[in-house]
Amino acid sequence: MKEIRIDDINNDIVIFAKDRSRRPMDKVIKGNEECIIKEYNKSCPFCRGNEYYTLESKFKIENEKGWIVRSIDNKFPIVDNLQDNIYGNHEVMIDTYRHNGSFYNMTEEEFYNMLLMYKDRYSNLIKNKKVQYVSIFKNYLREAGASLNHPHSQIVSLSIMPPDIEREIYISKQYYIKNNRYLYDDIINEEINTKKRVINNSENFLTIVPKTTKYTGEIRILFKKNIKFEHIRNKDIRELSSIFKRLFSNLFEINGDIPFNIFIHSHPKDIELEYFNVHIHIIPRMYRFGGFELSTGIYVSSIEPKDLADKIKF
Amino acid sequence: MKEIRIDDINNDIVIFAKDRSRRPMDKVIKGNEECIIKEYNKSCPFCRGNEYYTLESKFKIENEKGWIVRSIDNKFPIVDNLQDNIYGNHEVMIDTYRHNGSFYNMTEEEFYNMLLMYKDRYSNLIKNKKVQYVSIFKNYLREAGASLNHPHSQIVSLSIMPPDIEREIYISKQYYIKNNRYLYDDIINEEINTKKRVINNSENFLTIVPKTTKYTGEIRILFKKNIKFEHIRNKDIRELSSIFKRLFSNLFEINGDIPFNIFIHSHPKDIELEYFNVHIHIIPRMYRFGGFELSTGIYVSSIEPKDLADKIKF
Repeated sequence: MKEIRIDDINNDIVIFAKDRSRRPMDKVIKGNEECIIKEYNKSCPFCRGNEYYTLESKFKIENEKGWIVRSIDNKFPIVDNLQDNIYGNHEVMIDTYRHNGSFYNMTEEEFYNMLLMYKDRYSNLIKNKKVQYVSIFKNYLREAGASLNHPHSQIVSLSIMPPDIEREIYISKQYYIKNNRYLYDDIINEEINTKKRVINNSENFLTIVPKTTKYTGEIRILFKKNIKFEHIRNKDIRELSSIFKRLFSNLFEINGDIPFNIFIHSHPKDIELEYFNVHIHIIPRMYRFGGFELSTGIYVSSIEPKDLADKIKF
Repeated sequence: MKEIRIDDINNDIVIFAKDRSRRPMDKVIKGNEECIIKEYNKSCPFCRGNEYYTLESKFKIENEKGWIVRSIDNKFPIVDNLQDNIYGNHEVMIDTYRHNGSFYNMTEEEFYNMLLMYKDRYSNLIKNKKVQYVSIFKNYLREAGASLNHPHSQIVSLSIMPPDIEREIYISKQYYIKNNRYLYDDIINEEINTKKRVINNSENFLTIVPKTTKYTGEIRILFKKNIKFEHIRNKDIRELSSIFKRLFSNLFEINGDIPFNIFIHSHPKDIELEYFNVHIHIIPRMYRFGGFELSTGIYVSSIEPKDLADKIKF
């Protein structure tokens, strides 16, 4: 039995085909056992003590031993400030001074400092008059696009509106016009009421396996309150740190050390706040798209969100 | 220096950032040396002699030794004919009886038979009244989504219009409305005139590195004449076989045995023919998208199409 499902936040089309999971290719890319490496690596440009490899810090948090997190300009930026048709900044945010850190083993405190840095850099870059949108993302392991092992995230400000954000905003606005209700409120209420896809429901965040997604294994963290990312309070960051800690511990137990991407979808500069809630997409890179997806823009899924949520929830 | 480029057939947005190619992660996935394996593999369901593994042939071409190519129903179909909201057929087309065949070593004659099969299955599936679109694609190697080694392509008929096709059609129609000229004619003329991105220009096909594409290394073969795929003549198939043979030989010399996807973008059932020319996308899977691309729908490229075309042209 096949079924067409539509992702409610971006209208992605997914054919749900349960039997396909029996195919050999649908086997998960196995995570390697965690590689034990040292806290400091002499040749790593992102390690504490090796600051001479990189440019000056744009931001850092320090303790008595030195910096814990820091943000620096990316040496190979996607955008720069040398022309006007595509303008922006691109920084690398070092998640932790520990070379052997990863989302799978970072402490709540480490996540907290990292998220404080996310907020600082975001608030700083979104202020620029030329900037329309600021994108925060992380690539973990080479399969997910990472070029260096030391744990790091990235932030890119852009003078243009990204089409994927434009699409999500458009859909949320159309939803409001049609229903006189907010899309994200309705999703949050539905998920909390039906319960079955909820991984965690805390005061300010709802963590779910989305009803439909083109990325098998995707997890979303929705901000329940309608605030801009730069207005997130330290108390909320605390809460989010605890969610990150527990979520990635559970993911590691289930999948091992697998590649993933994580990115924040936040408000573009000039959008009316109401239509759109900040949310975080977490995409394990366990499956690869083939020619069908690349050719049609239709995706195929064979895993019931409920089954996945059951495994991860906390 | 960064530059915004727009793919003229689908409006994909690409930031051209030449410097990025110096990053460690932009290294090409190295192709393995060609694995010498035998023509027949006892446990392969797609090998000649092992037909009992699979369902009956929907189509085959035979010589005195048995079948050379055959098409069979996919055992794990993306779509089936059991319901109406998403209806279709999904066949596996075995490119050649040779287990050790691949696009990198197939003869012109093998390509010819394979393409005859593409045409037969396409013509057959597009006739079905419920079908809107028929997608032909191939996944080569696991990185590109292949599940079995024996060389095979796939064909899927669909009762729904794929969004990526809808977008290409929409753009070509808008172009006509605005310019009173056909987009594909203009692209073909421009490419032939400027020459620099042309890989091969034959009587009925133009093979190019597109000016802009989200997939680094993509090659496109454009049908010069505006015909539906089911109306391709055997003479054209001959010509296309020769192009495939030379193109993939050259790609093998440059990159080795790397994964790729190939897919045909053909006319949906009811579209006016004029707006849109059939074309083939060939996508080497050498690079992986990271969180920036997944998050924004903006892509980054650092290779000049001209430089790539120079290496491959014949």
